[in-house]
Amino acid sequence: METKVITISREFGSGGRSIGREVAKRLGIPFYDKELVDQIALESGFAPTFVEEHGEHAPTRSRFAYAFSHQGVPGVMNGMSTADFLWSIQCNVIMQLADKGPCVIVGRNADYILKDRKNCLDVFIHADMDYRADRIVRLYGESEKSPETRLNEKDKRRMINYEHYTGRVWGQARNYDLCLNSGTLGIDTCVELIVAMAKTKE
Amino acid sequence: METKVITISREFGSGGRSIGREVAKRLGIPFYDKELVDQIALESGFAPTFVEEHGEHAPTRSRFAYAFSHQGVPGVMNGMSTADFLWSIQCNVIMQLADKGPCVIVGRNADYILKDRKNCLDVFIHADMDYRADRIVRLYGESEKSPETRLNEKDKRRMINYEHYTGRVWGQARNYDLCLNSGTLGIDTCVELIVAMAKTKE
Repeated sequence: METKVITISREFGSGGRSIGREVAKRLGIPFYDKELVDQIALESGFAPTFVEEHGEHAPTRSRFAYAFSHQGVPGVMNGMSTADFLWSIQCNVIMQLADKGPCVIVGRNADYILKDRKNCLDVFIHADMDYRADRIVRLYGESEKSPETRLNEKDKRRMINYEHYTGRVWGQARNYDLCLNSGTLGIDTCVELIVAMAKTKE
Repeated sequence: METKVITISREFGSGGRSIGREVAKRLGIPFYDKELVDQIALESGFAPTFVEEHGEHAPTRSRFAYAFSHQGVPGVMNGMSTADFLWSIQCNVIMQLADKGPCVIVGRNADYILKDRKNCLDVFIHADMDYRADRIVRLYGESEKSPETRLNEKDKRRMINYEHYTGRVWGQARNYDLCLNSGTLGIDTCVELIVAMAKTKE
């Protein structure tokens, strides 16, 4: 039975990235997260930190963004905004990676970009605010902003980006094969479920 | 390890009811679907067919509904509409059933009604339109309306009822522990996953 391309979308702080890494390890397939950023950076000419910051965030609609983007990569972006340009590169990179074979891709709207492929298992990981707030403080430490503010800001930016580029509603069960609450089910259980499902989706 | 109260919400035609029945059978716990309707009918004084038709559907806001409801059960409904009266009975019945011990409850917004209890596993079953259309024609036969129209009408009524009484958005992953696409994962796999999860939720 063929292992699938697994896309993992996630709420910030839900453990989606850790779950994806462990799933890839157990299945012995590539895990694309930072690697994806590096590849998009390479193809776009932007710095990895810039891609990391803007690739999953709300598209900027200001004139400044257009002006800046043209200055950044003159003659390459054909009048597209920085966000739209990054999106087109992101689509190409994700489709190329999925062509190579089974893998785990975290974030970057990969569920939508690969929606016409039959061999994908699309997963959404979410958890309650309390669970995620506790988790980000343990993992990333405290900051000036409250954990709840950090979560809300990040969630909102991902949501706007997703809805802008896909026309779908963020967090709707129907966009995925499997949605898991990592707070109530536990990270390990989520990993086990996804590993089991990666080989059984009809 | 204690088995949980399992609530199953579902899109019409996704197989949620069949999945719930099989889960209850495998876990050896009660399954409440028609039984729930009968209990609500008994406590409300309405006919089971009336409860079945209105219990998960859009609340009626017309004056006629109020007038009719008072005629139907004079002096009992304290000025509530029929839909609101059924909702209050439904809440009581579902909480009483959950008090009795582990069980499977299909539909009727049980995920929301039992939201403050720790021992619930909340599941949402959904599937693509094509899969559900094919399934309802096989199970319930053809009708004057196209399967897609029947699905859209039923989904819409459940959605309005859910959003009216819970203030939540229907089909949002965050309302559940586990959301499963029965069309891509298969009915049997959904049953196995829920049975496994019923005993492992933290």
